[in-house]
Amino acid sequence: MSSSATGTSRCAACRNQRRRCPTDCIFSPHFPSTDPERFDAVHRIYGASKVAKMLEEIPPEMRGPAANALHFEAKCRIRDPVYGCVGIISTLNEEIRDTGTELAKLRARVAFLASGAQERQLGQDYTIVDDHWTEQQQIGNVVL
Amino acid sequence: MSSSATGTSRCAACRNQRRRCPTDCIFSPHFPSTDPERFDAVHRIYGASKVAKMLEEIPPEMRGPAANALHFEAKCRIRDPVYGCVGIISTLNEEIRDTGTELAKLRARVAFLASGAQERQLGQDYTIVDDHWTEQQQIGNVVL
Repeated sequence: MSSSATGTSRCAACRNQRRRCPTDCIFSPHFPSTDPERFDAVHRIYGASKVAKMLEEIPPEMRGPAANALHFEAKCRIRDPVYGCVGIISTLNEEIRDTGTELAKLRARVAFLASGAQERQLGQDYTIVDDHWTEQQQIGNVVL
Repeated sequence: MSSSATGTSRCAACRNQRRRCPTDCIFSPHFPSTDPERFDAVHRIYGASKVAKMLEEIPPEMRGPAANALHFEAKCRIRDPVYGCVGIISTLNEEIRDTGTELAKLRARVAFLASGAQERQLGQDYTIVDDHWTEQQQIGNVVL
């Protein structure tokens, strides 16, 4: 019998729930006894049975990322009981909006500078042609 | 006795839980019977007792935004059982990273164009002075 089955090495969830930790415990791989805060957080927000149910509905190989995401969301809600994760989403959306405005300004600035450079180049070409013409005319005048 | 107290106009939560809807029901203002999906979503993810507990811990004037955020998070998790809201946060973070890269490129382009414009302006000033000198010299040569 494994140490997990005897309950001497229970996961954080089974320790919290004061029960034996079965060898096929749904929590055990994702909520180790060394990190009780991790289970406490999801337990406080979702409750143990909901977390177990959500993990059971996910393929085993995706349960790790799911447990991480649930822990993250639970921490967010403990930190911000009104908005939770949605507060972060709002902040990121604001940042994207601000960055979008800055991007639009920079694109306009690039367009302005690029067109200005082109105009100056054309202007410079015209000045050279014009100077050349004036020069020839002046030389002509002098010669004549 | 109000219609709510008699249970003839129960909120979505009390209807779901098959109980009378008290006048001071914690769910009633935020989970109307006209939108049963809203309560079903938070019930599925958090459970009714956790939702009630979370709302009770928040000042009454903030319970509306909190119920909206809980509903949003629950919908996210139903749609994406692995990542939930965290999936959206990851996507937004990627977008911010990409936009940051584009911003850096545009800033570099603006700096390049601005310095190029300055150089061209200086070059143009130099060309005009140089042309003028050449022109005078040529005229002088002709005159001499």
